[in-house]
Amino acid sequence: MTMDIPTPKAPAPDIVRCAYMELVVTDLKKSREFYVDMLGLVVTEENENEIYLRTFEEFIHHNLVLRQGPVAAVAAFAYRVRSPEEVDKAVAFYTELGCRVERRKEGFVKGIGDAVRVQDPLGFPIEYFYEVEHVERLAWRYELHTPGALVRLDHFNLVTPDVPRAAKHMVDLGFRVTEDIEDAEGTVYAAWMRRKPTVHDTAMTGGNGPRMHHVAFATHEKHNIIAICDKMGALRISDRIERGPGRHGVSNAFYLYILDPDGHRVEVYTQDYWTGDPDNPLVTWDVHDNQRRDWWGNPVVPSWYTEASTVLDLDGNPVPVVERTHTSEMAVTVGADGFSYTRVGDVERGFKLGEQL
Amino acid sequence: MTMDIPTPKAPAPDIVRCAYMELVVTDLKKSREFYVDMLGLVVTEENENEIYLRTFEEFIHHNLVLRQGPVAAVAAFAYRVRSPEEVDKAVAFYTELGCRVERRKEGFVKGIGDAVRVQDPLGFPIEYFYEVEHVERLAWRYELHTPGALVRLDHFNLVTPDVPRAAKHMVDLGFRVTEDIEDAEGTVYAAWMRRKPTVHDTAMTGGNGPRMHHVAFATHEKHNIIAICDKMGALRISDRIERGPGRHGVSNAFYLYILDPDGHRVEVYTQDYWTGDPDNPLVTWDVHDNQRRDWWGNPVVPSWYTEASTVLDLDGNPVPVVERTHTSEMAVTVGADGFSYTRVGDVERGFKLGEQL
Amino acid sequence: MTMDIPTPKAPAPDIVRCAYMELVVTDLKKSREFYVDMLGLVVTEENENEIYLRTFEEFIHHNLVLRQGPVAAVAAFAYRVRSPEEVDKAVAFYTELGCRVERRKEGFVKGIGDAVRVQDPLGFPIEYFYEVEHVERLAWRYELHTPGALVRLDHFNLVTPDVPRAAKHMVDLGFRVTEDIEDAEGTVYAAWMRRKPTVHDTAMTGGNGPRMHHVAFATHEKHNIIAICDKMGALRISDRIERGPGRHGVSNAFYLYILDPDGHRVEVYTQDYWTGDPDNPLVTWDVHDNQRRDWWGNPVVPSWYTEASTVLDLDGNPVPVVERTHTSEMAVTVGADGFSYTRVGDVERGFKLGEQL
Amino acid sequence: MTMDIPTPKAPAPDIVRCAYMELVVTDLKKSREFYVDMLGLVVTEENENEIYLRTFEEFIHHNLVLRQGPVAAVAAFAYRVRSPEEVDKAVAFYTELGCRVERRKEGFVKGIGDAVRVQDPLGFPIEYFYEVEHVERLAWRYELHTPGALVRLDHFNLVTPDVPRAAKHMVDLGFRVTEDIEDAEGTVYAAWMRRKPTVHDTAMTGGNGPRMHHVAFATHEKHNIIAICDKMGALRISDRIERGPGRHGVSNAFYLYILDPDGHRVEVYTQDYWTGDPDNPLVTWDVHDNQRRDWWGNPVVPSWYTEASTVLDLDGNPVPVVERTHTSEMAVTVGADGFSYTRVGDVERGFKLGEQL
Repeated sequence: MTMDIPTPKAPAPDIVRCAYMELVVTDLKKSREFYVDMLGLVVTEENENEIYLRTFEEFIHHNLVLRQGPVAAVAAFAYRVRSPEEVDKAVAFYTELGCRVERRKEGFVKGIGDAVRVQDPLGFPIEYFYEVEHVERLAWRYELHTPGALVRLDHFNLVTPDVPRAAKHMVDLGFRVTEDIEDAEGTVYAAWMRRKPTVHDTAMTGGNGPRMHHVAFATHEKHNIIAICDKMGALRISDRIERGPGRHGVSNAFYLYILDPDGHRVEVYTQDYWTGDPDNPLVTWDVHDNQRRDWWGNPVVPSWYTEASTVLDLDGNPVPVVERTHTSEMAVTVGADGFSYTRVGDVERGFKLGEQL
Repeated sequence: MTMDIPTPKAPAPDIVRCAYMELVVTDLKKSREFYVDMLGLVVTEENENEIYLRTFEEFIHHNLVLRQGPVAAVAAFAYRVRSPEEVDKAVAFYTELGCRVERRKEGFVKGIGDAVRVQDPLGFPIEYFYEVEHVERLAWRYELHTPGALVRLDHFNLVTPDVPRAAKHMVDLGFRVTEDIEDAEGTVYAAWMRRKPTVHDTAMTGGNGPRMHHVAFATHEKHNIIAICDKMGALRISDRIERGPGRHGVSNAFYLYILDPDGHRVEVYTQDYWTGDPDNPLVTWDVHDNQRRDWWGNPVVPSWYTEASTVLDLDGNPVPVVERTHTSEMAVTVGADGFSYTRVGDVERGFKLGEQL
Repeated sequence: MTMDIPTPKAPAPDIVRCAYMELVVTDLKKSREFYVDMLGLVVTEENENEIYLRTFEEFIHHNLVLRQGPVAAVAAFAYRVRSPEEVDKAVAFYTELGCRVERRKEGFVKGIGDAVRVQDPLGFPIEYFYEVEHVERLAWRYELHTPGALVRLDHFNLVTPDVPRAAKHMVDLGFRVTEDIEDAEGTVYAAWMRRKPTVHDTAMTGGNGPRMHHVAFATHEKHNIIAICDKMGALRISDRIERGPGRHGVSNAFYLYILDPDGHRVEVYTQDYWTGDPDNPLVTWDVHDNQRRDWWGNPVVPSWYTEASTVLDLDGNPVPVVERTHTSEMAVTVGADGFSYTRVGDVERGFKLGEQL
Repeated sequence: MTMDIPTPKAPAPDIVRCAYMELVVTDLKKSREFYVDMLGLVVTEENENEIYLRTFEEFIHHNLVLRQGPVAAVAAFAYRVRSPEEVDKAVAFYTELGCRVERRKEGFVKGIGDAVRVQDPLGFPIEYFYEVEHVERLAWRYELHTPGALVRLDHFNLVTPDVPRAAKHMVDLGFRVTEDIEDAEGTVYAAWMRRKPTVHDTAMTGGNGPRMHHVAFATHEKHNIIAICDKMGALRISDRIERGPGRHGVSNAFYLYILDPDGHRVEVYTQDYWTGDPDNPLVTWDVHDNQRRDWWGNPVVPSWYTEASTVLDLDGNPVPVVERTHTSEMAVTVGADGFSYTRVGDVERGFKLGEQL
């Protein structure tokens, strides 16, 4: 039994939104082909070791940093806070928790000023910053837009062994839970949490962790996502389409999961709903509801449950993974031991995927 | 070895397009919920035994007849011909082939006049007619349109054991082959054939037959198809979404396959291409190309290969099914003995689906 | 010269978002046809004098109240605040400003609890509330969605003679300006202001006021807006399409303006951008930039500049209108005295509309 | 009074579809920017005097030829016929009519073989050909597609003084009329005629002629057309958006009219309906129906009625224009003498545009 992470007396930093991810990739040229040539992210700047990328509606320096490194991993999940002083608050908050905390006035990456990185109690490398270089918001620059134009960073999704423990900590940090997946016994399989008034800035997915499940970018319309699939087909990399496109039950968004050359998972996402009211109703899904992950009942591929990216500590070393001891969503819904239903009360086993083989 | 169907000396009837299908359903009320309440097809007229349905852009009486009956089946695949005289030609054409031919000046169903039904050499019940009652084309009646509005009947897809034999007969009938799936040994797994200048009015899919694989309706845009999926999720009938939505390799159309209450398969389809030039290039796909059936490489579910609807002879009796003796597409592409590739030259086995389990 | 509205010492209420508008209509039956039958807003409840309507993704009781009355007008612009205590703050804030303030613990309309209504210093009837009845969020109820499904209330647009004066007051209330339209002499023609992180909750348009310019609802995709136009054509009320559809310069959103039976203007709107960062860059448009109001340069019809709805005071009497004394946007951009350019440096007069007549 | 064009005894050539237009442009570099860089047409080949362009789904050498020349004009409207022998029929057909006929076995432009050009009885330069070089159909090459991808040539629209006279001649050529605009007195203002089973290959618009009104390309979806508008805004050439986007009454298609650097008008068009049945019902619109040209009642700009491109004779000289003597559509519907209605029976004058000024 893992103990709860204590709630610090120090106030949490006021987080505005998830802002960027720093990804370590093992072949920068191949990653550039994927993120720039294929996905159409905009290069703010680049050098032989790093590429700084942003979405078409972004006005801060970047939403994604690709950095050449020896092992594919996530170096930082970065949140923007509401003012420079909130970085101080982050320092105090995590110091009280006994976490390793490293502050750099000059920032950890280009385009970012005063920032702090911590290894949080869940093991994830988190950055908080306010100071950032402004760049052109390309929203109106339609001559540059592509059929699958990515317009915003939407969220991070993290894998952690104990979802309620992680969610409690995130709530201490000022997040609010918008949706979750549970079973009748009270096991929580995943939870979605937000600062900005969408379904999430960060989701916690139950599994061996800490690992990074995916980073998600938003498009305007569903056809933009379909255009990405069509292009991946044309480029003969359809084997990098892992799951979707489809409609999520959770979040009600239209989605696609694809894999970059290192296996880092990217979601393309559109049209969830407003969650900004203080009493926004929590939506709880039954883990056996076959429409929770895909509203159309299409099967979740096992790799989506099992594969995730390594995360690094502040020295750049992979953080060891702790096994989930609660039951796994895949085990209870797919295959010989699992079942799902389309309609409450129906008893079905190994739904759809099982019928097919 | 089956012998070729001879080419009649009598000229083939001049077929304009596939026009309607007559489906026998075992619970007319349930079928009405599916086709009218859910899919939004327009009721031209109905009585306790039959419902006549059409699409929003149709001006002839119907594109689909649902008839209550003891066993789920297809009673007729109906083509419209260019003039009343072409019905005479159909009579002569099939009489010369030794087929059973039945002509009714008053038509076989409401809304249709002088028509002939035949059991063709492949075993399918085919109707030819010119005379038809005109009804309002609801193209401009946007106050009636639904989010997933079906606007045209697009094609029939038939299952037959010997595809080249069937295709040769269809060419005798005046069809042109637009695309097919083959292997290096020359086995033909499926062929698409058209009269109207789209990819097909009728496809021939290799398998135990004669059976009906699916009937396809067109929408205007891809989001219309997504709306149908979303609605099926909302109605908790996502288990009737069999395959898709996705992008076909063959035809380049965006597609969805769903199952009616009797298991009759319906495709919703949009945006194939012009094929009306006499020298329109044939597109041949390698059966091992994993993008041939789904451009995004998503797996074809086995039921899609194995399940199909019974067809009736002119007396209303089920036509016995002949087994396919050529290798099956499912066997050569899915599971232990099959393989597919995303990129020519790559060797992969049991692609995607195999990786997942 | 009008004096500035003073900044109260009392803190402003913490506004979450624009939440609903109360509209007085002169023929409730006709208005129901427009908002329910045509636009597809969802009826939460109704009686012979009132209809409470909401959008598909809303979970509070309503976004629009239609109330039968003798003269078409706006009875209230209602904002939701972050907690019950914020209603007290609103009372203090406006009391200090010398405004008329009326609080009702039981609310002013059904579904809303403790609320305060004020006639603000600009003359507008504003409501603040926290307590509200929750209703089903119909986001997942796709069986109810229409081709032009409205999913959120997006913003109010108000007409006021002195835009900088109004904007300064709104900033005192905690709003942030996201975009505005100015000229080289510093005249401000309109300003957009937000609490929620979109381009606006409220815009201030220069003109004779206080009046209500429009209320805007959001759809998910552009085709949803086109579907509304198509339906209005089918219903032969295309003369109630006033302007658009088009792409805004300001906000970058796709838009449509239509007129209800009383002439109240409704905008349908989709896809503006994230503005939630504290340093979100202000976008200032030149009033002579012909793409500021329509990115495609299509003319703004004069009625759009001149017509607006009466607003009521707390006794239900029309608030007298004060004339704008600054130059009007229509005068400087349309007709004999106005000009606009497509490209900076080009000299054009009465662009496009002028060419046409 | 103009006499009818006689019906030749020689059979008409069997036309498959409109295939390409040869446009003379005065600044090839500027035209390339418009058609290639902006619209995204695909260059099949080019040299310093000519650019051969095609759409993404085309398999013949080109759909548009841009040729540098001294005066902006149309050099040829080219139709593809069903076989090489049909070119002979075209020669005989027009020879019997006394037209100038010029045949070139090597073709008039690159990529085309044996062809005949005629100056038809209406004054238009028409080409018929069968032989053509095949090129790659880029339908599946999604890595090349743009947000506004043009996928097919859809139709030509011609201006001619006497529409019934022109339509009668087109029917002699084998065309079928699908829609027209008339008034109660029997004046015909425009007619749409097809060979391929869409609403038209060629429309005849009443006005001073022979001139070319526009050439139309098809996209798959409505958002593709919107993307073109957005891009033109971004490139600050919104003044080249002449009319739309909008929904046509006639054809029910979604449309946009833009102007190339020489003022040649290009339509982008999507989603008309099947017209291939022999008894396809003719749709006749009242010229005073304000939704006939734009289903949403948006005004037709006068330039759209008055401006059109010069056509050349077979020697490359501009064909003199004959004035229309019948009443003009603009005169009877726009301005002081014209009127239109939204609802039959309503009396309105100078609708919408008139209200606005």
